[in-house]
Formats: sequence, structure tokens, C-alpha cells
Amino acid sequence: MSTSPIRFGIIGCAEIASKVARAISLSPNATLIAVGSRSIDKARKFISDNALPASTVPLTPYDAVLNHPSVDAVYVPLPTSLHVTWAVAAAKKGKHVLLEKPTALCVEELDVILQACRENRVQFMDSTMLMHHPRTEKMRELITDPTRFGEVKTVDSIFTYSADENFLQNDIRVKPDLDALGALGDVGWYCIRSILWANSYQLPETAVALRGPVKNNAGVLLSCGAQLLWPDGRTATLNCSFLAHLSMQLTVIGTKGLLNVSDFVIPYEEGKTSFAFVTDASELATGWDPVPSKHEVLTDLPQEARMVQEFARLVKLIKEEGKEPETKWPEISRKTQLVIDAVKKSVDNGFEPVEIIG
Amino acid sequence: MSTSPIRFGIIGCAEIASKVARAISLSPNATLIAVGSRSIDKARKFISDNALPASTVPLTPYDAVLNHPSVDAVYVPLPTSLHVTWAVAAAKKGKHVLLEKPTALCVEELDVILQACRENRVQFMDSTMLMHHPRTEKMRELITDPTRFGEVKTVDSIFTYSADENFLQNDIRVKPDLDALGALGDVGWYCIRSILWANSYQLPETAVALRGPVKNNAGVLLSCGAQLLWPDGRTATLNCSFLAHLSMQLTVIGTKGLLNVSDFVIPYEEGKTSFAFVTDASELATGWDPVPSKHEVLTDLPQEARMVQEFARLVKLIKEEGKEPETKWPEISRKTQLVIDAVKKSVDNGFEPVEIIG
Repeated sequence: MSTSPIRFGIIGCAEIASKVARAISLSPNATLIAVGSRSIDKARKFISDNALPASTVPLTPYDAVLNHPSVDAVYVPLPTSLHVTWAVAAAKKGKHVLLEKPTALCVEELDVILQACRENRVQFMDSTMLMHHPRTEKMRELITDPTRFGEVKTVDSIFTYSADENFLQNDIRVKPDLDALGALGDVGWYCIRSILWANSYQLPETAVALRGPVKNNAGVLLSCGAQLLWPDGRTATLNCSFLAHLSMQLTVIGTKGLLNVSDFVIPYEEGKTSFAFVTDASELATGWDPVPSKHEVLTDLPQEARMVQEFARLVKLIKEEGKEPETKWPEISRKTQLVIDAVKKSVDNGFEPVEIIG
Repeated sequence: MSTSPIRFGIIGCAEIASKVARAISLSPNATLIAVGSRSIDKARKFISDNALPASTVPLTPYDAVLNHPSVDAVYVPLPTSLHVTWAVAAAKKGKHVLLEKPTALCVEELDVILQACRENRVQFMDSTMLMHHPRTEKMRELITDPTRFGEVKTVDSIFTYSADENFLQNDIRVKPDLDALGALGDVGWYCIRSILWANSYQLPETAVALRGPVKNNAGVLLSCGAQLLWPDGRTATLNCSFLAHLSMQLTVIGTKGLLNVSDFVIPYEEGKTSFAFVTDASELATGWDPVPSKHEVLTDLPQEARMVQEFARLVKLIKEEGKEPETKWPEISRKTQLVIDAVKKSVDNGFEPVEIIG
């Protein structure tokens, strides 16, 4: 395989795009060649603010990125309501699609995107960075080991952060015409993904929203929770909010083991991460035996750069070796979106259980 | 005040009684003088198995302990269904009552116990050991500090352990005539207590059981969860189970701070404990700023000995200085029991919300 990097364009200069622009530059098999915005000045400013190479082309409108012949793949950090339009447009132009989460406003929209990607043989991946951290891989090794973990019984996943007044008034994530899923789509996405991850991506059968969700005046969720249930008795709870201090607590309890991680979405530190794990612990009068071990996992590349690297690797296989797109990533996206939709429906129907059909 | 220790009797030789017998011997102001059992042999065996001083008197039946003129206070680790009988009998004999949790099968029973204690001017305390750990005090200082924590928004409390087949068949905690509250009374008690503790003992307005509780053939809960709600929008979730690996995760999220502790009921180690706390953290592209601090709290005396010490201190004030019993402890017990009752009712009524009236 050639050593030429996969060439990215970005459409939309959202804040998160800075992080991904850095990730593209850190990734050994990727390069950012174009930034598209609704205004050429914004595109220029993004390039200069992020100290991108002088060779990076500012473009307007977004179509200019999709029409650029050298662009292999696009990263799409636009508001969720625009995903279907622009992800489909990108696919139709043969550009591979790295799509910011939540992937869509509902699974029907996502299915339109995924169909366009399949029909145009482009790779689809959502931008859930934690999936690519080596810690995530290490934790999965442990919780899928029947000897050390037994079977998963319950998962508890919390992701909250405290949005400031400006965010709560003006951010796209509180606007019904932009990111109508609010906190559920923004932070709840990670909770649901982590729960699916811990359950080897087996879809729950039922979602039931917890009581007390908070919505803004426009009806967008600022805070909510839910319970998920599987036919064999497994359960999970999730809590997500824009209205409480930063927290990212994931607890996975098996029949024989326990995993605890307190920074599952964005590690406390970029290069050095940890989690706690224990097998077959008992409580004695004087403490636990054994005490959970702290497992450290180091990484040279931050998780978002590893995400870009993996995406670019798949794109390269398609582009240079004629391989088919990897179906694992769109499948996981779709399951996450299905659960999001079910939780939203349960919030809206007064906390009644909603069946999840895959 | 004299230096003579408060003299304890134990009625019932349950496994937990060994831990409390040790705690009494470790506590500088307490001494164990009598052990009562339904059989004198069991009482003798308990004294010998626990290497108690030769001066410890084996007695039978339980009344012999209550009638013993030198006994100031009794620790009652009997099955919950017997609490009302024996705690009331003890109070009527003027013995102070340290009662194993859950305090009663329902608040109406607990009220009978508390009334007997009031009428006989004896101290009542439930045996929730974690309340007496200096770590608990330190954590409370932090989460009640508006500068460092803001206001509590949500609490998530999990206590599970994996009971073996023998326990699930034979333990008193799975028998409807002994500990009819099952896992809710045994482990859920701590979840509910920790949630009340984090909310400065303000009772929630509503309890709603989570779906998917597991009961044994006799209808005793082996696993369940619930959500609690306060009128001002605070929420809490709890999960308790006999059917999953040991876990004791407490997460308290405020508007300005985060507390995380993974061994809240029984610390990993007896003398050296820790928790994680952070104020005003933000997520940056590269991690958290600041990262939560690990706070270490050391203790010479294990939490159960500190519990005995505090109980004996209160008894001594009543006995030697004519003080009134401390009302804080029975009040906290009653609130915990009220929430237990509401969760149980919601499990039984098909997960409908149950109002909690203090």
C-alpha cells in the first residue's frame, strides 16, 4: 500500500472541528487539505486559528469541498439537522464520511445516510472518539473474558457537564431546528454507546425514560436519564445532563468482575489513562479481598487521532486495494441511534417502556 | 465523666455480630460483657470463635441479656422480622439499642421501636457503619460547601454483591418470614442512606422503582433499583443486588463539583481510604482541567468501632450526665426506612411513582 496519506476536507468550522483538525494532523496516514465554511472568512480564520499548514485551502460553500477532486474523505461537524443533507451529498460525490455524533435526528434519517454510503461504496464512521482509545480495547478484553468477568449483569453510565448561560441560550445543541436531541444526542450518545459496548452491541429490548427530564422552553432536552433492559435480565441505567458538573462515570458489573472508570469519554490526561478492575472480590470484615487493581494504559496518539488513523486506514483499503467498506462502524452507529430514538420516545410518551426493534 | 466503659450485650450470634463484637473490643469506651443466643452452646461457641475475654457471659434465652443488671446497651443483629419484638423489649428494660439494618420491615414497625426508646429514654442507633467513618465526614464537608460543590443535582448509588448458592437458598436475607425486604433491605439500605446523606437528609418527594427487579420464588427481592425525585429537580438512582459482583459506587454530582467513591460501604482497606473530588473542572481538547484529586483519609479505628464509640458516648451522656438521647440517629433511620418502604411499594405496584410523606 502506498504511503500517501488520506486527504481530508472539513465542512463546518464548529468548535469540535479544531480538535479533529489537530487529530488529522497527528494521524500518520491523514492530512487535512481543505476547510469549507458558509463564509470564506470563517474558513480562513479557522485555518489560521488552528495553525494549519499554509497549503490548507479555505473553501465556500460546503459543496466546494465535496467537489474538490483531491479530497478523499470529509469530516462533518455540522448541526445534526444538516447531517442527512451533507453526508448524503458527500457520499454521492464519492467522499468517505466521518460524521459527528449524534449521527442523525432519528434512525430513518441515518438509514438514508447509510444507504447513500453503501451505494457509493464509501466508508462511514461516526466520530465517537472513545471507541478508539487503547484503554477501551483493554477494558473490553477484560469484560468479555468469562473467567475474569463472568457475564455482564448491569451497566451504569453517566455523562454530565455544566453548560454556561451562553451555551444554554445560544449553542446549537439547545436549538430545536439544529440539534433537536439536546443533551440526549450530545452526551447521552456516549452513555448509550458505552452501554452497548459493554453488552457486545446486543441491542436492549426495551428503553424506559427516567422521570424528571429537563427541557428548555423550546422543548429540547437539557437533562434526562433512562433504563435499558435485555430479555435475559441484564439492565443498564444512563444519566446525561448539561446542568450538572462534569462527570464521566462508567461502571460495568458482571457476575464475576467489576470495571470502574471515571473519565470514560475524555480521559483526564491525554497520554496516560487508567481504570479499576477486579475479579472475584469478597468483602471481609476488614475490607475487600482482593482490592481492585488500577490498570494503566498509555497512548502516544490521543484517541481522536487514533480514530482518524483507523478511518483513514479503512479508506485506504477501499481506495487502493478495492476492499469493501467496513460494516462494523455503521452498524454500531445505527444501534446507538435506535436506542437514542427509543429513549426520546419514552421521554415524550410519559415514561412508558418503548420496544427497540433492530 | 467516669472512665468506666459502656457494657454491651449482644442478642443473636449472626455473622455480622462477630464484626461488631470486634468493634466493641476496639472501642475505647465500650466492653462486651454478655452474648445471648437461643442455645447456650451457640453463645459459648461465639465467645470462643471470636476469642472474646473469658469474662464474657454466655446467656440464653435473649431475655437473659435484657435482664442482666450490668448490661447498659444491646446490639441486636437478629432477623428484621424480630426487630420490633426485641428492640422494644430491650428499651422497656432500659437497655440502649444499637439495631442492625434494615431497622424494620416497615416504618410503622420502626415507629413502635422508636416510641419505646423515647418512652424509656434509651438511645437508638442503627448499625450503618459507614456513617461513622472520618472519610464520610470529610466528603460531607466538601459536598455541603457551596463554593466547592454548588448544589447537589444528582446522586447515583450502587451496592451489589454476588451471593453464593447457599446464601440464595438458606440465608435469612432471602426468607420472607425473616428479612422480607431482601436485597432492598440489606444492600439497598446503604444506597438509600448514602443518597439521603448526600442530600442533607432531605426526603425525596417520590420514589419510582426501576423495571426488571428479580425476586425469588418466595417473592423476596434479590435485585432491584429505583429513582428518587425531589421537588426542586434533584434526582437520584440506586441499584442493589445479590446477583452481581461486589460493587459500592457512589457518585454525587453538584452544580460546581463532583465526588466519586468506589467503596463507600466497606472501604477497600480498613485504615487508609480515599475518594476523588473536583471543583469547576472543564473538558479541554486534551483532558480535564483540573483533574479530580485523590483525597486520602486515614483512621486508627475502623468505622464499626467508631460507630460503637459514638453510640457508647451518647449512652454515657444519658447514663452519667442525665442528658436526653440524641434524636439525630433515629430520625435518619426513619427517613431511610420511609424511602425503603416507598421503593418496595413501587416495585409491588408495577413501577408507579409513590409519594413519600415524612
